[in-house]
Amino acid sequence: MPGEAGYEQLTLALAKRWGADIIRDSDGTKLSPEILDAGYGVYSTICPIREHNEWIKGHPDARQHTFLCTSPLVALGESLTIPIMADFFAGQFEPDASPDAFAYWQVFDRTTGGEVPPDDWRYNPEAGTVTVKACPWHRYTASFLAWRVWEEISMYNHVTNGWSKEHLLQLNPYHPKAISYLRDWLKDWCDEHPQTTVVRFTSLFYNFAWIWGSSPKNRHLFSDWASYDFSVSPQALMDFEREYGYALTAEDFVREGKYNATHRVPDDKKRDWMDFIGRFVRRAGRGLVEIVHQAGKQAYVFYDDSWVGLEPYSGFFKEFGFDGIIKCVFSGFEVRLCAGVPAKTHELRFHPYLFPVGLGGMPTFSAGGDPARDATQYWISARRALLRAKIERVGLGGYLHLVEGYPDFVDAITNILGEFRTIKQLHEGGAPAVLKPRIGILHAWGALRSWTLSGHFHETFRHVLIHVLESLSGLAFDVRFLSFKELLDGVPEDIDVILNAGDAGTAWSGGHCWQDEDLVSLLTAWVHRGGVFVGVGEPGATQSGDTTLRMSHVLGVDLDNGDRTCHGRWPAEVNAVAGLIPAGVRMPVRENLYLTDGRAQVLAATGENATAVLNRFGSGVGIYLTGFETGAASTRFLQNLLVYAVTGKIMAEGLTDNASTECAVYPRTGRVAFINNSGVRQETGCTYLGKEYRVQLAPYGMEILAL
Amino acid sequence: MPGEAGYEQLTLALAKRWGADIIRDSDGTKLSPEILDAGYGVYSTICPIREHNEWIKGHPDARQHTFLCTSPLVALGESLTIPIMADFFAGQFEPDASPDAFAYWQVFDRTTGGEVPPDDWRYNPEAGTVTVKACPWHRYTASFLAWRVWEEISMYNHVTNGWSKEHLLQLNPYHPKAISYLRDWLKDWCDEHPQTTVVRFTSLFYNFAWIWGSSPKNRHLFSDWASYDFSVSPQALMDFEREYGYALTAEDFVREGKYNATHRVPDDKKRDWMDFIGRFVRRAGRGLVEIVHQAGKQAYVFYDDSWVGLEPYSGFFKEFGFDGIIKCVFSGFEVRLCAGVPAKTHELRFHPYLFPVGLGGMPTFSAGGDPARDATQYWISARRALLRAKIERVGLGGYLHLVEGYPDFVDAITNILGEFRTIKQLHEGGAPAVLKPRIGILHAWGALRSWTLSGHFHETFRHVLIHVLESLSGLAFDVRFLSFKELLDGVPEDIDVILNAGDAGTAWSGGHCWQDEDLVSLLTAWVHRGGVFVGVGEPGATQSGDTTLRMSHVLGVDLDNGDRTCHGRWPAEVNAVAGLIPAGVRMPVRENLYLTDGRAQVLAATGENATAVLNRFGSGVGIYLTGFETGAASTRFLQNLLVYAVTGKIMAEGLTDNASTECAVYPRTGRVAFINNSGVRQETGCTYLGKEYRVQLAPYGMEILAL
Repeated sequence: MPGEAGYEQLTLALAKRWGADIIRDSDGTKLSPEILDAGYGVYSTICPIREHNEWIKGHPDARQHTFLCTSPLVALGESLTIPIMADFFAGQFEPDASPDAFAYWQVFDRTTGGEVPPDDWRYNPEAGTVTVKACPWHRYTASFLAWRVWEEISMYNHVTNGWSKEHLLQLNPYHPKAISYLRDWLKDWCDEHPQTTVVRFTSLFYNFAWIWGSSPKNRHLFSDWASYDFSVSPQALMDFEREYGYALTAEDFVREGKYNATHRVPDDKKRDWMDFIGRFVRRAGRGLVEIVHQAGKQAYVFYDDSWVGLEPYSGFFKEFGFDGIIKCVFSGFEVRLCAGVPAKTHELRFHPYLFPVGLGGMPTFSAGGDPARDATQYWISARRALLRAKIERVGLGGYLHLVEGYPDFVDAITNILGEFRTIKQLHEGGAPAVLKPRIGILHAWGALRSWTLSGHFHETFRHVLIHVLESLSGLAFDVRFLSFKELLDGVPEDIDVILNAGDAGTAWSGGHCWQDEDLVSLLTAWVHRGGVFVGVGEPGATQSGDTTLRMSHVLGVDLDNGDRTCHGRWPAEVNAVAGLIPAGVRMPVRENLYLTDGRAQVLAATGENATAVLNRFGSGVGIYLTGFETGAASTRFLQNLLVYAVTGKIMAEGLTDNASTECAVYPRTGRVAFINNSGVRQETGCTYLGKEYRVQLAPYGMEILAL
Repeated sequence: MPGEAGYEQLTLALAKRWGADIIRDSDGTKLSPEILDAGYGVYSTICPIREHNEWIKGHPDARQHTFLCTSPLVALGESLTIPIMADFFAGQFEPDASPDAFAYWQVFDRTTGGEVPPDDWRYNPEAGTVTVKACPWHRYTASFLAWRVWEEISMYNHVTNGWSKEHLLQLNPYHPKAISYLRDWLKDWCDEHPQTTVVRFTSLFYNFAWIWGSSPKNRHLFSDWASYDFSVSPQALMDFEREYGYALTAEDFVREGKYNATHRVPDDKKRDWMDFIGRFVRRAGRGLVEIVHQAGKQAYVFYDDSWVGLEPYSGFFKEFGFDGIIKCVFSGFEVRLCAGVPAKTHELRFHPYLFPVGLGGMPTFSAGGDPARDATQYWISARRALLRAKIERVGLGGYLHLVEGYPDFVDAITNILGEFRTIKQLHEGGAPAVLKPRIGILHAWGALRSWTLSGHFHETFRHVLIHVLESLSGLAFDVRFLSFKELLDGVPEDIDVILNAGDAGTAWSGGHCWQDEDLVSLLTAWVHRGGVFVGVGEPGATQSGDTTLRMSHVLGVDLDNGDRTCHGRWPAEVNAVAGLIPAGVRMPVRENLYLTDGRAQVLAATGENATAVLNRFGSGVGIYLTGFETGAASTRFLQNLLVYAVTGKIMAEGLTDNASTECAVYPRTGRVAFINNSGVRQETGCTYLGKEYRVQLAPYGMEILAL
């Protein structure tokens, strides 16, 4: 829990009530000796790249960069002048026209898609313009390397909360002098903080990409939590070329001005760059962790903010040597994301933060806020996932004094912490029981993007896969994440269901990865021999061939790309499976969906449009859903569907008979835990090894029975 | 009007009341001497290709063909057997495996997209199967030439109305013996019908494509009014190859099993085939018309049913020598379609037909029907277009005796005919006044598909362009239809507005035609110099480049193809133009629409999504609408928008001030006609040359004032 100087009594009283073992500081909340000497562990946050303005001012070439691309301008004649900073927030960026950086600048004719030869354009540094020898009426962009002159979190707080402190710069540890400086600084810091037992890195070196615009009306031009755009520098680009034998260009990052979000199918260049930067971040990060360890402290890392290169699912995470990982959670999938990291200690940072206003801009600890309600809602999302996967620690962040006016919040946290400790204990004996099927989520990133689409739920809710993951996070299935590449070696033996969910062309549905005939044949054969392929939205949609969905022969449905408005359609006659789809499940209508051969079983339809279809294919099954929106009813539907696909039944041992409730069975601990995800009283039960267990659950309640 | 033997008194009484000058027969309604000798002209229908079963049975190679493609089957092993007729209606098709035809058969691996070499598959005629040497788990189709063994209109009537007469065959006049037989037959027919004054061809040789399926649940596999699929034969294909220097294949017609609807962007091969068949149809058709003329009769042609090759907008229509063209009308655009044909006489066939049941399957002259209401509704749609374009004749079709129980229908037709004659008279002095702007509708077909999308409104309503055309059909603008190809020579001088409307990839929006940089530059320059470009739906959408809409720089908006879910958006702040958008206009929400640079004027929005946007570009304007659904309010909106775009005002002389009403000014005739398109009384008015004209209009009423 956070401590706060000036509120020593409150800090120590709550530490006792909540059973804290460690008290942390953070930006703006320093700990006083009274707290430091109270016998608790001390947990201090550092952000390695900021708070070094003095040093950076003496070494401006150690600042960080990014590539920017102007929005296209139409040439009205044979010359076009592009004011390169017109689109961008001048507080964040400055063009870098030094020789090494300027070599990476590019001008494109976006009408033809071709690069303009360097001889046909020039940069005027005084005017901040690029002048292009143009083809009249074509559209042109200029791409350039820019310095980032304001650390983005500092910038956000200044702009949003009206701060007036000095703008923080960020140093680029790729610069040899910068990493050397940083190591010395950290050694000093450890010496100066003898009482700190845990150093929390917030986080490493490169922020998620966050490109701001010049207009307050469209400030956030581009935001991606897992983008490596902010890790570029001329030196790194040159080293990359030396090592990989080819050069990256501005275009490889700005990609037609659209940039290169994690939601897009990554190309090999992007993967190479991520590997290159990842290796650097591990090398430099491990050096810092060693300093912390040498000072006799533990090192934890916060899996947010400037986390780029951390990649807990890369397979190389252990190289850092971190003692623990901390993830802030709004949702169940983030619990699984944290729990799945190969680390000794997993810690969740609960929401809401102890701030007057929440991340979405709504009041929490201020007039109109209800932090107890918020804490309970987040807990209900997280709790079901906590039943499935073990987390060792939880914490709060922010200004502790804010809780003073909210005794119901203190009560809520007390209750939550009690439930958390109960759940943690359930895991001590071993993992909870899982059901068949075992599920493989197939997308372009595979394991590297296990349990996340590179952002919080509210940032990625337009992508159907995050809804599926949120539902799965609390269900009794093993879930793995598979890339198209690894699938070419064969579907892993332990997988019963392959699920592919997303919009056409995204990394999640897979885009052009599906053009690989071997992949399609392999999956086709696997389903025919008994596998289950579940497609949601536009699964396996590609631009090539006679189909839109590459697995349409398995799914029994396809999406009309517009070529079939003169074609007849098989009627979507519903042949429902009793009990499969709970009331309240909503699936979107796709007017372009059609049944390929009329043999598939329509499980649900809206009007003339099928929304859920099951197609028997050899010994296996293809299942198609038009969409999926997470919630109690749809989560139960997903559970029913997965169990039904492999067993032909909807119920199984260890599942509750009430969709507002869930349970988890811990065979070794000899317990079954029931939870009520609803705000009203529920009766529920399950069977296990033939025996029935029944409970009454208070609103949002939890009950544990012995097996 | 149709006459009917056995109802001589009714026929002659109605002929008098309705002012008929010609009485027609049709299938199943023969005229008796009493009618024939009553002094009216006689109008007889012939369908040149059917009713020749005897002759065809002796010349089975003179039957007609089509290409068919099986739906894909998955190979479970290294051999796959495809039952080629499994998908198709056995009553309609028989495989043609004669040597000349078999040479055109093809097998495709649809997983790779490659053709299977002929050596790797064989046809078993007894089993009706193709056996393929397969790559396991790939999907295969067989494409083959099939005889069409049941004339489609006869087939439809048999299946729908339970007829039990002999199935009619259709002869292929491309066969030299068939055309020679047909000419002799027509000479005899003319001799045997001395009282016939007008021979109505219904229509020529090749039916619209109508491929029926084996399952009653999905009977109409493919239907396209302007498709040339039914015009193939081995002889024609071989002659084509000789003439054009390249061979067409089955795949050029079946195109991945999707066939080649008019809604798809035509390739050069399709255009070549249409030209080739068109020339044959004109040559053979002209021969038949000459026989009719030599017999001292007139020849009219019905622009429906087996009309393929007629192409009234090809520029060569006059070669046929027809004296008149007849179009059945449900909608206003069909009036313009008919009126625009270069023919001496234009005739409309009114709906409803005098049949118990209408084309949509709803009762008309039977219990539950209200033919007077139906006739009025169709008339209201047609009348506004008749005000704009001259039509010389109208007619009814069907069984006259059915009207006996419906005196209100007789009254309605009497009234309609009165209004028609009034309107016809208005045109006598000259064309009605038109307003600026003059409009060019831009699509892949250009003038060849003026005023039509190759079907009736209810068959093409999913395509936004037909809604635009229906609204335009009664508005006071000149409308031309332009192809991408001809636009490359420059936007015609007389065009003020270019409008492009349709879904991505269709012939109407243009698909890959927009990849031509010269086209884009030319239009960009034209707008910048003062032109107006209106885009509706997905105008100019292509798969290439940094944009989805190729004219996004002119429109100020673009559609996100999914690459931009991490990008910020300009807010869709509405800056309305007073009076521009009448109440009741609905435009769909496109969640992927975004403002490119925030400078465009949002005219309308639903929630956060703009639905109508105006973007000033140089001296010109780009206008974008998310969609368009025809109706009184949206028609008025379109009028307002077009006038506003070029004049900056909404009203103009010759426009009414009441959106439920319209008017047309005939300067030479010295009249202004007001119509009420609504079922309630309206007051309305307009100004012309500074003078104001006001009228009261009865429900659906029409009033003519002197200027």
